[in-house]
Amino acid sequence: MDPKSRNLTYHHGAVSRTDRERLLGQRGAVLWFTGLSGSGKSTVSHAVEHELYRAGHLVQVLDGDNVRHGLCKDLGFSDEDRTENIRRIAEVAKLSVDAGLLVLTAFISPFRADRDAARAVVGSDRFLEVYLDVPLEECERRDPKGLYKKVRAGEIAEFTGVSSPYEPPTAPEIALPTAELTIEESAARVVAHLREHGFLAAPATDPSTDPSTGESNR
Amino acid sequence: MDPKSRNLTYHHGAVSRTDRERLLGQRGAVLWFTGLSGSGKSTVSHAVEHELYRAGHLVQVLDGDNVRHGLCKDLGFSDEDRTENIRRIAEVAKLSVDAGLLVLTAFISPFRADRDAARAVVGSDRFLEVYLDVPLEECERRDPKGLYKKVRAGEIAEFTGVSSPYEPPTAPEIALPTAELTIEESAARVVAHLREHGFLAAPATDPSTDPSTGESNR
Repeated sequence: MDPKSRNLTYHHGAVSRTDRERLLGQRGAVLWFTGLSGSGKSTVSHAVEHELYRAGHLVQVLDGDNVRHGLCKDLGFSDEDRTENIRRIAEVAKLSVDAGLLVLTAFISPFRADRDAARAVVGSDRFLEVYLDVPLEECERRDPKGLYKKVRAGEIAEFTGVSSPYEPPTAPEIALPTAELTIEESAARVVAHLREHGFLAAPATDPSTDPSTGESNR
Repeated sequence: MDPKSRNLTYHHGAVSRTDRERLLGQRGAVLWFTGLSGSGKSTVSHAVEHELYRAGHLVQVLDGDNVRHGLCKDLGFSDEDRTENIRRIAEVAKLSVDAGLLVLTAFISPFRADRDAARAVVGSDRFLEVYLDVPLEECERRDPKGLYKKVRAGEIAEFTGVSSPYEPPTAPEIALPTAELTIEESAARVVAHLREHGFLAAPATDPSTDPSTGESNR
């Protein structure tokens, strides 16, 4: 065989996001958790992960633990670096959604513009903003990492909600008043939303019956 | 219930990489394709993706199409930016391996040091270097994107293999002389390697019987 033809003859169809979603029995999406430090982003996202796993779903959690020391370890906490941090997380989430995963991101992400940019990167139909709606006083009372104490002692200069702004979502897909809910109740609300909106089932077999999932992403 | 206790009482076990791998029936790994422009990285990686999908496996392909215009769109082609490009790809691949995916990366990645750094990020037991071993003359003869022609016409100053170095792997896990193989044969070799090394089956049920997959990654 001529070497050139050997390398131009592979014409199988590309594997699409819809194919991968059928394999997984779910539809890829990002649950973008946002809220003050101590509002429960990490706790609730891991509870959701656990519930989804028990139901047979593939989930990826992106949080400070696995992003700040890896992909974004070159970034600090200036406004510019925070924006770049969120941008990269959104781009990774987009790649994972394309792979068919349910992605949970757990970052304060205080600025509306950054969250809107993340939504634009991922695509609005696959982006669910989850607002952990908890008064500052309650977060400070919990203070799971002892950070508010340090802020009040003057050991941390800039801190979201105290000395730097937190811009709450205006129209989050899911709002969780975690001061009034158990962790299990919060997780159940998120899972119910996903189920009601079709994310926990494979896309329809005939793409033409479901325009939102019928596109090839190749 | 006291609000504080409500938020400190969730103690389900964390979901580990091994859990996700059991769900998927595979073990997460990176296949790091490297080779000159025109050596077949993109073509062969997509052929491998297709074969793995047909066998029920979840695959993510990272290549110029979905990385250079997204996660790495702020980067140019200086040595420093090329290194940062590879670093970010390795970090994303690590996150995806942690999710249980088989990740195929298709970048020239000409420098040994960058590839070794990627291996260190992902972990050597989950990193398989796939060297597309094709003479420059053959790549230039194929010239699928017409780039070599532009180089020879002086329209591109720096080009790997011509005016900037390509450092071949010294001990790749898989070597593919794609000038002597059909695309199907190349893909079959990669799939066979994965199968022989246990990546296409779920990890053992008892982690203690398989130390390499028993760790929790949380």
